[in-house]
Amino acid sequence: MTVGVVGLGLIGGSVARSLLARDVAVVATDPACGTRDAAAASGIAVAEDVAALAARRPEIVVLAAPLRAMRAVAREVAEALGADPGWDPTVTDVGSVKGAVRQAVAAAGLADRYVGAHPMAGTEHSGFDASSAELLPGARWAVTVDDATDPGRLEAVLRLVTGPLGGTAVVLTDDVHDEATALVSHVPHVVATELLSLVAGAPVRDVALGLAAGSFRGGTRVARTDPRRTEAMVTDNATWVAPALRLAARDLEALADALESNAPVHEFFDRPAEVRERWAAGAGGHAGEEPGPPEPLAEGWPAALLERCAAGEVVVAVGEDAVVLW
Amino acid sequence: MTVGVVGLGLIGGSVARSLLARDVAVVATDPACGTRDAAAASGIAVAEDVAALAARRPEIVVLAAPLRAMRAVAREVAEALGADPGWDPTVTDVGSVKGAVRQAVAAAGLADRYVGAHPMAGTEHSGFDASSAELLPGARWAVTVDDATDPGRLEAVLRLVTGPLGGTAVVLTDDVHDEATALVSHVPHVVATELLSLVAGAPVRDVALGLAAGSFRGGTRVARTDPRRTEAMVTDNATWVAPALRLAARDLEALADALESNAPVHEFFDRPAEVRERWAAGAGGHAGEEPGPPEPLAEGWPAALLERCAAGEVVVAVGEDAVVLW
Repeated sequence: MTVGVVGLGLIGGSVARSLLARDVAVVATDPACGTRDAAAASGIAVAEDVAALAARRPEIVVLAAPLRAMRAVAREVAEALGADPGWDPTVTDVGSVKGAVRQAVAAAGLADRYVGAHPMAGTEHSGFDASSAELLPGARWAVTVDDATDPGRLEAVLRLVTGPLGGTAVVLTDDVHDEATALVSHVPHVVATELLSLVAGAPVRDVALGLAAGSFRGGTRVARTDPRRTEAMVTDNATWVAPALRLAARDLEALADALESNAPVHEFFDRPAEVRERWAAGAGGHAGEEPGPPEPLAEGWPAALLERCAAGEVVVAVGEDAVVLW
Repeated sequence: MTVGVVGLGLIGGSVARSLLARDVAVVATDPACGTRDAAAASGIAVAEDVAALAARRPEIVVLAAPLRAMRAVAREVAEALGADPGWDPTVTDVGSVKGAVRQAVAAAGLADRYVGAHPMAGTEHSGFDASSAELLPGARWAVTVDDATDPGRLEAVLRLVTGPLGGTAVVLTDDVHDEATALVSHVPHVVATELLSLVAGAPVRDVALGLAAGSFRGGTRVARTDPRRTEAMVTDNATWVAPALRLAARDLEALADALESNAPVHEFFDRPAEVRERWAAGAGGHAGEEPGPPEPLAEGWPAALLERCAAGEVVVAVGEDAVVLW
């Protein structure tokens, strides 16, 4: 099998490096000449452009371009397919928003070949230089489907993710993914930015920064990443981020009202009690659990998997005609 | 010199243990019999109550009780003073809100003896069992004064903090302290709680927790501490927390508006640019800097120190009639 990687930033570069390290054939490209040179120097087989990458007929093409470039990149893949009817790749991606990528891929006529994918991994840095074969092993991936997803292509992506990429996967709809990542990634980035802004705009700014200890460092760590990257994630997922921000604004305003009128505020602090306890117990981690028995890929298995993942189960391996779940 | 410590929770216990480790005489008390026993077992000289502690005539009394108990504890100290006109202690504290403590102390008639203090240190745990001689060394302390603060008592507290307690100090007014800690501690605790609540209330809760990676863990770490302690800090400092929450709510609402109308959102993410850069450069840390020459404690030195600390300078040591600043 050969995997094509289009875009060699932090995640695309890490996919290519991971596959190379596991002896999976990779061919990669990037619009930046310097990035292609750096990738070639790392031992990655580099193609000049998408057409040259397509000529190698990879069975899976990973679109690892920024969302803004996704329509153009998908069109280039579609053009290469038009020129080579014998090539039958599965198309996937690594983007942090899934509904918008599916739209871009569908606009290029690639919907039938597409399975969405998003590794929950990252660093404060970006670009190929920050990529590493160590970034993705152990990562939880969201793999997204719709009613029309081809089971064979879903199997191929799950096999890639849980095999050479060393991850685990949950199978989700785009909407569930995009709402969940709004809550655990995009909104936390916004809120961290706002915490920095509150200090930046205060008359006591210098004293506040001098007193800042662990709670402020932890709460604002992600606000110290590239603000353009944060802005892109947030605007790409505006559909789910905006209503969550309104909820947060309403709750903070209500707490301010209660504090100013000496009303009880227990409820605000107790609301997340159950999540707090589950989190303390390692929510979602499945740490120390034994995987279950292999589940055969019987008729309708993608729908069954979607349901089991929504209930918290995780794909840890794909065997011969079966998946293994936590 | 003997130091009295009233209240042996996380901070009071750590003060007592630190002083013990540096061979400073300590006498401590706590209303809980089990805590007194545990402290005695750790080698700390324990008094039955405040009256018994006062009988040891400590030169400095550290009120380390919860804010809700502060009026009662201050009154007990005042009663002991009334019974022993020869005792002339300086009274300080370790509370996370300073205006409210000064009020409580003033209500007991101890205003003339009082210098506020607050170490920027803590853990997710509480109580004497969580206290440690390792917690406070290296901590930044806020030491608070008003126009009437006795320079000799301020000097005594700065000497204690930068000497046996191993910290550094900034001298502030109560208001500057309370606004700054609202921004770098109390509001971040509220916001972290809100992030957990958004997930707790979402239909995709289980999936979201399963996907949660570093940004969510960092952003919600402080929301996993005891909610009653967070609630107490926030309500004690409602004066400064409430308006900051309103500002945050307004900003988040405005961002939601912009996202939903496809308006530019650059400004939201760029607003804290300067703080982001200073933070990356180690804002307020003074890391690697050499302390300045000793500054003599000349007429009006507390006011001069207040001004220099507001501009970012830090007291690192108190020598013979002089302070050393970063």
